[in-house]
Amino acid sequence: MGQLQRTIHEKLDPSDRSGPISRGLDLFLIALIAINVAAVILETVDSIETRFRMAFWVIEVISVAVFSVEYAARVWASPEDPEFRDRKHPRLAYMTSPLAIIDLVAILPFYLGFLVDMDLRFLRVLRLLRILKLTRYSPAMSMLLDVFREEANAFLAGFFILIVLLVLAASGAYLAEHQVQPEKFGSIPEAMWWAMATLTTVGYGDVVPITAAGQIFGSLVGVVGIGMAALPAGILASGLADLLRRRRAALTKQLRIALEDGVIDADEEQELEAMRRELGLSKRIAEEIRADVQKSRSDNLVGQCPHCGRNLN
Amino acid sequence: MGQLQRTIHEKLDPSDRSGPISRGLDLFLIALIAINVAAVILETVDSIETRFRMAFWVIEVISVAVFSVEYAARVWASPEDPEFRDRKHPRLAYMTSPLAIIDLVAILPFYLGFLVDMDLRFLRVLRLLRILKLTRYSPAMSMLLDVFREEANAFLAGFFILIVLLVLAASGAYLAEHQVQPEKFGSIPEAMWWAMATLTTVGYGDVVPITAAGQIFGSLVGVVGIGMAALPAGILASGLADLLRRRRAALTKQLRIALEDGVIDADEEQELEAMRRELGLSKRIAEEIRADVQKSRSDNLVGQCPHCGRNLN
Amino acid sequence: MGQLQRTIHEKLDPSDRSGPISRGLDLFLIALIAINVAAVILETVDSIETRFRMAFWVIEVISVAVFSVEYAARVWASPEDPEFRDRKHPRLAYMTSPLAIIDLVAILPFYLGFLVDMDLRFLRVLRLLRILKLTRYSPAMSMLLDVFREEANAFLAGFFILIVLLVLAASGAYLAEHQVQPEKFGSIPEAMWWAMATLTTVGYGDVVPITAAGQIFGSLVGVVGIGMAALPAGILASGLADLLRRRRAALTKQLRIALEDGVIDADEEQELEAMRRELGLSKRIAEEIRADVQKSRSDNLVGQCPHCGRNLN
Amino acid sequence: MGQLQRTIHEKLDPSDRSGPISRGLDLFLIALIAINVAAVILETVDSIETRFRMAFWVIEVISVAVFSVEYAARVWASPEDPEFRDRKHPRLAYMTSPLAIIDLVAILPFYLGFLVDMDLRFLRVLRLLRILKLTRYSPAMSMLLDVFREEANAFLAGFFILIVLLVLAASGAYLAEHQVQPEKFGSIPEAMWWAMATLTTVGYGDVVPITAAGQIFGSLVGVVGIGMAALPAGILASGLADLLRRRRAALTKQLRIALEDGVIDADEEQELEAMRRELGLSKRIAEEIRADVQKSRSDNLVGQCPHCGRNLN
Repeated sequence: MGQLQRTIHEKLDPSDRSGPISRGLDLFLIALIAINVAAVILETVDSIETRFRMAFWVIEVISVAVFSVEYAARVWASPEDPEFRDRKHPRLAYMTSPLAIIDLVAILPFYLGFLVDMDLRFLRVLRLLRILKLTRYSPAMSMLLDVFREEANAFLAGFFILIVLLVLAASGAYLAEHQVQPEKFGSIPEAMWWAMATLTTVGYGDVVPITAAGQIFGSLVGVVGIGMAALPAGILASGLADLLRRRRAALTKQLRIALEDGVIDADEEQELEAMRRELGLSKRIAEEIRADVQKSRSDNLVGQCPHCGRNLN
Repeated sequence: MGQLQRTIHEKLDPSDRSGPISRGLDLFLIALIAINVAAVILETVDSIETRFRMAFWVIEVISVAVFSVEYAARVWASPEDPEFRDRKHPRLAYMTSPLAIIDLVAILPFYLGFLVDMDLRFLRVLRLLRILKLTRYSPAMSMLLDVFREEANAFLAGFFILIVLLVLAASGAYLAEHQVQPEKFGSIPEAMWWAMATLTTVGYGDVVPITAAGQIFGSLVGVVGIGMAALPAGILASGLADLLRRRRAALTKQLRIALEDGVIDADEEQELEAMRRELGLSKRIAEEIRADVQKSRSDNLVGQCPHCGRNLN
Repeated sequence: MGQLQRTIHEKLDPSDRSGPISRGLDLFLIALIAINVAAVILETVDSIETRFRMAFWVIEVISVAVFSVEYAARVWASPEDPEFRDRKHPRLAYMTSPLAIIDLVAILPFYLGFLVDMDLRFLRVLRLLRILKLTRYSPAMSMLLDVFREEANAFLAGFFILIVLLVLAASGAYLAEHQVQPEKFGSIPEAMWWAMATLTTVGYGDVVPITAAGQIFGSLVGVVGIGMAALPAGILASGLADLLRRRRAALTKQLRIALEDGVIDADEEQELEAMRRELGLSKRIAEEIRADVQKSRSDNLVGQCPHCGRNLN
Repeated sequence: MGQLQRTIHEKLDPSDRSGPISRGLDLFLIALIAINVAAVILETVDSIETRFRMAFWVIEVISVAVFSVEYAARVWASPEDPEFRDRKHPRLAYMTSPLAIIDLVAILPFYLGFLVDMDLRFLRVLRLLRILKLTRYSPAMSMLLDVFREEANAFLAGFFILIVLLVLAASGAYLAEHQVQPEKFGSIPEAMWWAMATLTTVGYGDVVPITAAGQIFGSLVGVVGIGMAALPAGILASGLADLLRRRRAALTKQLRIALEDGVIDADEEQELEAMRRELGLSKRIAEEIRADVQKSRSDNLVGQCPHCGRNLN
């Protein structure tokens, strides 16, 4: 029993790509998700829908069956997951984790269709959330998500600034334009559509100030908009650089521990490679780090400044 | 008397979240501001305004009453504030600080309505500036504002460049287009509306060059525009990275002082946590710094480069 | 034979600009590419095409002749290239390298025109890919391409996020707008055109949501769009900064090796200059590095921190 | 004579703000430039021009007189400038420097109006280039310009990429759309207007692809466009961070030299302040650097890592 659980957990874990079974399972699930998303998208085209209704139905039933089995298997095997193993209710803990909720959302619309009397079109489109299931298989994306999480406070502050600017921009445009264009700037909520299009520098042009005061104010909002658009870029750039620096430091530390006995054996090699992958560092950077560490050892020096290459004694 | 003053100051200070009273007061004031802003926004929708006129009036009177009391209390208790305590006229110094001016602006429109005969709609919308009162409660935003302040010179230079480019872009488009589209590019001030929309890459499309010369020049302005939009992003990214580095250095220093006697007692722990919060550093980063500092102590080494993990002897 | 091969390789290699022959050859090829690209562009203007049809034909025949000889010469001389010298089939290895494929693509459309019965206009425009031949001659661009390659994983993850957001944005807009604007948001594939214009903040304005739900959702997509646009900026900024740091470290190392005997002779000087060029570092930065290294030597110190100027002993 | 020359040079040099005369002269010239630019802009508004023609003429004559005297004085006093003092022909060297050319361009249109028979409107607008005279007075802008100069190679490479992308985007859109919209995508040069609007994410919306192929291709160009817009942001961010780091290192070095005798006397203080201003560093950063340097001295240590605060021994 426990053996089966362990096997299922191993085969379903995308970070473990050792065997051909888990590799095949991964590819099969990724393909199924892609086919599903394509089907939901094409289903909204009337001409295609009428012609392939039957095929779409078959795809849907098979997918939901597979995803349901997958969900059940993941929940059942979750006590094997090192992340949830030591929790009081490991299955419950797993079921409330983001990835498990995405998996549930992927199959729920199908069952809901039988139970509740909802707008069918809405339920169908909800199935598109299945695309989020793919996040599990992109190791590089974890780094971007980590930066988002780490800089969450800064992003939230940026969002708060955006809301404040939105309110102020919309009210200014409302004051300047509501008498000349009452159908477009008739109230502050209406003016917000223009304010958002300008602050995000999208600028559709369907709503545009025409008074001199409105255009001067609109220009100011546009300038503030490029500052606004700069915020996430600045936060991300600084966050990514910081994360990269720390990940590199972590790999260097590990390498120095591995080298303490003078040689890196096969086990250590594998461990370092796994760490490199997990940290999302490129092979080239890993090689540079290794060359640095080895040189500093052969020089019998305590260290070498990573910035300028000079020896620190 | 001094005791009451101290208590009021403590309860109103959002950085001190120890007691349930100040916590409750914070939440109450934040909710009141949010309700207020929503009311002013909805009031501009005619159908809502006619139906809920009475409710809006009640919200307004209560809010102004509360905000007036809050303002008076803050001014009265300001001699307790460590920032103003040692000034000659602490209350006057407080009253001229940005946060106090925002508080005053939040209540002034109400009283002005009785005194001066101004456009009512304008006065009403002015109340939206109350949203700025929220800045007091966002600790993470202080970091962004600090970067803006520190890089103020660079931003000003960027703004100056923008003005120069605006003038040159508008005059070029005027030369190329004023004969073909006299109603849109009839003078340089008119052409500035197009120039702003292009330099900020908003691009509404209500005013567009149609001559070959105008389109070539417009393309150049567009290219310059993406460079222009890059300026604040670049300044912010470099400024944020720098601020983060310095804040981390400050926390590390404090940690080393706290660790000089070998242990971190409860007092020091609290101090470090307060510092971490004030600096807006995430818990994860603080833990990394602590692990680094402690490891370097246990190794009996002077230090270890945080960038590469090598020992600095 | 081997001598001729070597000479041809040297003359065609843009990184070797010692002799007047290779310099002249470079300029001739660059000019020919530029003339070609201009010709293809102008050929699509009907009035110009009818007037200069003969001239365009002559340019085309001469160019293809030259480019064909160039391609043949490069393939023949490729065993001299240090990059391919040690491969089993050096010519085959060269022929499958990106630069060689671009060279082939530049001449193929001409010969294909005789063999296959394709749309002539399409074949003509394909010749514009000759502009990619210019990449060979821009040493500074190699740095940007290196950053793209090194950060490829991050860019791919960003592209994946964009696809997910595109699907979600289009389906949301479809749900909100398909009943009111069936001709513009009639299906999810149709709604994708709006979603792309908004996520990239281009915002043409030809398709715009008009329902309240659609505009609120559209505003959210716009905000996500500025975050999306920030991703490549953040990745590039962090990648460029990292690359620059590492290149500078490499030059410093080389300089210290050259200085070990106390003097930099003419050979070492030339080597350092070649390295500086290859790394794309400016002369000013190279001089700063040299001043730093020399000062630290004259101080009889192990080094000096390049960040703060303090001596590291 | 030499004395007068020296005095004039000192009074006109904006970096020397010691005396009230040069300060007043600066303010007078800045005001005159601003008035001039405003006059040229307003002159293009017909109603204003007819009413104030006389005033505009007086402003013009006075300004040209002052700017001519200023130009002559600067050229005459240029042998006193340390930058040009040691050149063979100091006045000629100064006259070909960018700032002197801007000064000449500011007065030339007036004199040209008498000599050549040119379009008057064009000559008038040319006077707007006088706004560039202001660059002399913005010390903070010099930092941004330095970054642009230092990263010129990267920016040039980015511009080259833009040209290549422009050609490819325009030709793709031409192929997809020229049959359906011959009046907008009739030739590649015409299609370039759309390509520029999309690559710079301006997106006017006056020209928009309507075929499925054109919209898919247009979406790709939009995605490439946000990458394109990211390039200058990334280059600037990395360049600014680097410049800041190096400037800080320079100030630290200077401070350590000044502190070698243990005290900083009034002369050294002034020198350091002048250096801080020239480098465009904020007072707060300068104080932090000083605190760091002094602490490391009082600890009798060789240095302290500026990143983590640990002592480097």
